[in-house]
Amino acid sequence: MAFSKDAARIVIFEANTPAGKAFDVALIVFILISVLAVMLDSVDWIHDGYGDWLYAVEWLFTIIFTIEYGLRLWCIQNTWLYARSFYGIIDLICIVPTYISLWFAGTQYLLVIRVLRVLRIFRVLRMVRYVGEAELITQALVASRRKITVFISSVLALVVIFGSFMYLIEGGANDQFGSIPESIYWAVTTMTTVGYGDITPSTTFGKALATVIMIMGYGIIAVPTGIVTMELNEANRRRANTRTCPMCSAEGHSREATYCWRCGAHLFRREEQAAESSPER
Amino acid sequence: MAFSKDAARIVIFEANTPAGKAFDVALIVFILISVLAVMLDSVDWIHDGYGDWLYAVEWLFTIIFTIEYGLRLWCIQNTWLYARSFYGIIDLICIVPTYISLWFAGTQYLLVIRVLRVLRIFRVLRMVRYVGEAELITQALVASRRKITVFISSVLALVVIFGSFMYLIEGGANDQFGSIPESIYWAVTTMTTVGYGDITPSTTFGKALATVIMIMGYGIIAVPTGIVTMELNEANRRRANTRTCPMCSAEGHSREATYCWRCGAHLFRREEQAAESSPER
Amino acid sequence: MAFSKDAARIVIFEANTPAGKAFDVALIVFILISVLAVMLDSVDWIHDGYGDWLYAVEWLFTIIFTIEYGLRLWCIQNTWLYARSFYGIIDLICIVPTYISLWFAGTQYLLVIRVLRVLRIFRVLRMVRYVGEAELITQALVASRRKITVFISSVLALVVIFGSFMYLIEGGANDQFGSIPESIYWAVTTMTTVGYGDITPSTTFGKALATVIMIMGYGIIAVPTGIVTMELNEANRRRANTRTCPMCSAEGHSREATYCWRCGAHLFRREEQAAESSPER
Amino acid sequence: MAFSKDAARIVIFEANTPAGKAFDVALIVFILISVLAVMLDSVDWIHDGYGDWLYAVEWLFTIIFTIEYGLRLWCIQNTWLYARSFYGIIDLICIVPTYISLWFAGTQYLLVIRVLRVLRIFRVLRMVRYVGEAELITQALVASRRKITVFISSVLALVVIFGSFMYLIEGGANDQFGSIPESIYWAVTTMTTVGYGDITPSTTFGKALATVIMIMGYGIIAVPTGIVTMELNEANRRRANTRTCPMCSAEGHSREATYCWRCGAHLFRREEQAAESSPER
Repeated sequence: MAFSKDAARIVIFEANTPAGKAFDVALIVFILISVLAVMLDSVDWIHDGYGDWLYAVEWLFTIIFTIEYGLRLWCIQNTWLYARSFYGIIDLICIVPTYISLWFAGTQYLLVIRVLRVLRIFRVLRMVRYVGEAELITQALVASRRKITVFISSVLALVVIFGSFMYLIEGGANDQFGSIPESIYWAVTTMTTVGYGDITPSTTFGKALATVIMIMGYGIIAVPTGIVTMELNEANRRRANTRTCPMCSAEGHSREATYCWRCGAHLFRREEQAAESSPER
Repeated sequence: MAFSKDAARIVIFEANTPAGKAFDVALIVFILISVLAVMLDSVDWIHDGYGDWLYAVEWLFTIIFTIEYGLRLWCIQNTWLYARSFYGIIDLICIVPTYISLWFAGTQYLLVIRVLRVLRIFRVLRMVRYVGEAELITQALVASRRKITVFISSVLALVVIFGSFMYLIEGGANDQFGSIPESIYWAVTTMTTVGYGDITPSTTFGKALATVIMIMGYGIIAVPTGIVTMELNEANRRRANTRTCPMCSAEGHSREATYCWRCGAHLFRREEQAAESSPER
Repeated sequence: MAFSKDAARIVIFEANTPAGKAFDVALIVFILISVLAVMLDSVDWIHDGYGDWLYAVEWLFTIIFTIEYGLRLWCIQNTWLYARSFYGIIDLICIVPTYISLWFAGTQYLLVIRVLRVLRIFRVLRMVRYVGEAELITQALVASRRKITVFISSVLALVVIFGSFMYLIEGGANDQFGSIPESIYWAVTTMTTVGYGDITPSTTFGKALATVIMIMGYGIIAVPTGIVTMELNEANRRRANTRTCPMCSAEGHSREATYCWRCGAHLFRREEQAAESSPER
Repeated sequence: MAFSKDAARIVIFEANTPAGKAFDVALIVFILISVLAVMLDSVDWIHDGYGDWLYAVEWLFTIIFTIEYGLRLWCIQNTWLYARSFYGIIDLICIVPTYISLWFAGTQYLLVIRVLRVLRIFRVLRMVRYVGEAELITQALVASRRKITVFISSVLALVVIFGSFMYLIEGGANDQFGSIPESIYWAVTTMTTVGYGDITPSTTFGKALATVIMIMGYGIIAVPTGIVTMELNEANRRRANTRTCPMCSAEGHSREATYCWRCGAHLFRREEQAAESSPER
């Protein structure tokens, strides 16, 4: 097989050639099948009937992914940079567990092997890499990370306080509120409007407090929603409006604009602006 | 009865004449009654008491809808185009099941007939056709389809990973988390804040992880909300700025614009446009 | 007691005099107490211990509200207009049940009387009248009523279709999905993310479909949120921006603006605009 | 120990010096550990095994916080102002319970002591003080407080009315709807989409009404979300437009403004302002 490092790198790491695209699609299909195999193997009756087949499938994909990981290390320019990167580590985590399961093959370790197996689910994470539209969302979430932190801290504080109060109110009469941590678990369940119903208040006062927590949780969801909406609007507006008119400095041009909306001067697309610098018409 | 193809087509396919409107309203009423009949027939005591009546109603509406379908095929200009269209197929699906139930009438197929019957529920879908305001919403949803796909993919990845972790944590101690697919079902239930409570964590560590998933699901709902809100704002803004350039007919001018963003021609405020037609100032 | 019709009308129907405000506050307190009395009377042990007292309280408030209703009819200019208005009807409904309970006083009608009693809860609705900030919200909700109707119709159609499918899938194996209406009830429970857990899928395929419904319901909530947010933004923008510059016709002035942001010309507040028409400085 | 009042005040009350920052971080860590100790002590098996250690930890932190409270009182300029402030009262509440537990040490008061202990959870609230990003959110919530009040009042009215109707419908057939307050508790559970499932309708009509409440609750959440989003956008817009008028110092100019909206003076773009200071063009 005679292919150069560069050709391999373009196929494996980039997706804008037909070969590169085919490689990526095949990889996604392989990842999905191997994840499905791990999932099915956890169902008892499937494991009993087809366990050997699934074991073979698991080894097949582990070998395929190992070869792929080797190729990635070989053809990338800066090997160490890739190996330390987020996806480099995930690529490694996705193949190691199967090999480790060989060493610790004693019956008593069976459950542990299962744990390692499930870690291969991380392969799913690699799918995100292939989606390009995530940019705007990520940008908005990064911009709102501080506000979201404040929000989550407030929710956690509320949940701890309400959980403790609920323990005081219900603790004596109701076994379900057996300790403060369990009451906090209940408060999270209630405030996030999940409401399993495995723990429910039984006293009148407890139900009254639960009512307050529910309405609070119902209303508080408006805050992160507002934050993310605001930041998405901002990110969207910024993307559209980074050009200023060379004559009157007006901003707010729509993305397709060729002429300034205020003075009618000629505008340049960003690429033009970057390429040449002659501001005359 | 002597009515032309064209007159029939206007009554059946269009809704801006009194006759066409009456036809559409009658059709909606008929669809709703027939759907109601199918629904009521599934209730045991109603089926025992009034099953024959409902069977008659079902045949009556099937015949009415068959005649209607025939008229549609007859009066439309391009018969094949209609038959292949979305609504053409639904119109057909809504009448076929009753006829098929005649062929497979053996007692052992009774349940299957029931299945076919319920497919007639698709008639409900035809109601959407009559609602005109859906345009803006559809436009916003189409514009945000890529972002929504990214979002749903992320949620699915999270749900698979969290479900697998939960299986590892709870799997031994808790029969409810019997396999990874069931744990994923639980993770979806929790992350979407539905929270049936048919599967709940019992270990301390499981409850801690459940708390994390709940708060994550509670916060993540902000993302699709932000996306749709942004796109609805965009769609609304575009619709509001319908001033078109007198030279190049470009649309999408911002409200303060004086010059066309595409060709640089002078624009007029709506009042000016309405009042006078002299293009000088 | 010598007070004129006009003076009484200002006290009873308006809230911008000290006497009128005191009257309204007293009325709200009375309404809340009487509602509380009805609510407490439904609790068995309170009814057994204090039923007579609560019965007396009910009659006391019924008489007070009857006198108030009489005064409203007497002092209003157009009696019939008030009597037919929304609040006029509610005012009547809030006193009638207690009187009817005298006629139907037999033991076998006791439960019916209770029903009539509870209708007095409508008094709560009158509280809305006293809150002024509801305007903007109402405006936005009215503007979005068509879009909300489209949205609710879509949700109902989805719920009917998914409920019917679920009946087909789970109906045989699971008693909880006993009929299509019950399955639709379950589908509503799931799609709105309420998730009681009184009906849950038990088959693998049913759980898979439930997962789809949950994620759909989780995402679809973004649509009404986006609609209301858009309309609130619109209503807010409209309220701020109805003034145009008399010189350059610029719009988009902030609510407190005195001078045009584009040409610096003097602007008039809305009241000024209404009062005088001299456009010079 | 020779340190001045001023130096101590800067360390204790401010966080922009290294010493002040270290003090604040240490305090947060101490608060979190003491809250954790209270929480763990409520778990039965931890209390049995390590109760004495946790008792010692509680006293240790109580003494530390008492010294800290004393220092705060000593070094602040206006002692009484601090003692009456929100954080001053919380600081006091966080240390008092442990001392009171000495007086009421009889076995029969053990539970009461526990209650007082849990009040120390209020220490968590102090964490909010250290987060600076909360400003924008708080601003938006304050601006929308009236609209939120209207919304919550409407939800409460709906919940009372629907709860009462449900009591009438289900009350006879279903023990779970034993009184109006319990039915209201159920209505809150349903409308906020929490859905415990401890109380569920059993009659056909009850399920139908429950369906209406669920869809209503599912849609109504859009209102507070819209309100908060609008106010966040407003607060963000105000913050972004911090250009001040050189004549009258007015803020809140729109991005395209050339003239001050309050006094009509000529405004400069930010770049101009930064580059030159000559007010003519």
